[in-house]
Amino acid sequence: MSKIITISRQFGSGGREVGKRLADALLWSYFDRELIEQVATETGLDKGYIEKYSESVATRNHPYVFGRTFIAYQQSPSEKIQLAQLKIIRELAEKGDCVIIGRCADYITREQNPFKVFIYSSSMDFRIDRCYDKVPADRENKTEKEMQKEIIGIDKRRRKYYEYYTGLGWGAIENYNLCIDTSAVGIQGAVEIIQKAVGK
Amino acid sequence: MSKIITISRQFGSGGREVGKRLADALLWSYFDRELIEQVATETGLDKGYIEKYSESVATRNHPYVFGRTFIAYQQSPSEKIQLAQLKIIRELAEKGDCVIIGRCADYITREQNPFKVFIYSSSMDFRIDRCYDKVPADRENKTEKEMQKEIIGIDKRRRKYYEYYTGLGWGAIENYNLCIDTSAVGIQGAVEIIQKAVGK
Repeated sequence: MSKIITISRQFGSGGREVGKRLADALLWSYFDRELIEQVATETGLDKGYIEKYSESVATRNHPYVFGRTFIAYQQSPSEKIQLAQLKIIRELAEKGDCVIIGRCADYITREQNPFKVFIYSSSMDFRIDRCYDKVPADRENKTEKEMQKEIIGIDKRRRKYYEYYTGLGWGAIENYNLCIDTSAVGIQGAVEIIQKAVGK
Repeated sequence: MSKIITISRQFGSGGREVGKRLADALLWSYFDRELIEQVATETGLDKGYIEKYSESVATRNHPYVFGRTFIAYQQSPSEKIQLAQLKIIRELAEKGDCVIIGRCADYITREQNPFKVFIYSSSMDFRIDRCYDKVPADRENKTEKEMQKEIIGIDKRRRKYYEYYTGLGWGAIENYNLCIDTSAVGIQGAVEIIQKAVGK
């Protein structure tokens, strides 16, 4: 069976929590923000900057043109992040027994045959409530409409990032083995469904 | 919890078998081809004809024009099938404790809050093999390429049918609570995953 479970997720759907609880239940390693630490060591870049750009399409610096034909690019910090992330996820996949959240890990580890999960919520209210629960001050600071706009914006960025690096559709069933609506089955329900699916 | 489980499915993914085994395990009623019998009683139409058109977009007869403004349609046989099917599925949903396959049942029963499953296979080989296993003579009669073309054609018709009557995307995650890749978890695996999801 798969020794790697990758979890892609809509923002606010609880995918991160599903992954954390799943890794705890399986006694496997868990990588989400943990990757940022490793990327920082690898690149020497600031952790806040890495967090911001770890799931964004890398921007390129302007090309340098030498003479008429030779064009070179200086690696931009966001390109450095993507390359470091790629290297680290490949190393993790070699070791196996791990749950990796986002960052195109399903695609990067494809040769190790990961079990690929997509976590989403068919209810926008469920996602808005989860966001408020995580940052209670936002109940005062942001209207539901503003929160919804933010959620949609983050998903749009994740989709763009995924589709840019993989050429595949984000959240399109054919790219996953199991897609779970947490607003219907709950966070713990999703964890147990995945355990059942991977025979653990 | 939901007393209705609807199963939409890609052709050859084993959705029908998942539904049948699930209904047996839950001791619930199961409706797939069983609906054809009921539609035949309701409409007086031939069962073979109903089977052919039960998941197709209804074609309309040509309109009759009376005077300049009044236009009437004579109900075509395929429209009759759709209307009878709609009525029967609504009656089943009232009774509950049932698994219904295809036929936009997820949409038709939406006010009864069904648990909506989509069964698919990320592997085309898995689907082709299942089709050959069901009709062994086809191993001689149809090449894999022909079989694949047939599978894609049937799915195309199902998509058109679903999208025409619901206005929603067929196989788009947001319209389901659980989407399962049978080529990754197997038929029995899918049954057990759904049981876990609905708490049975």
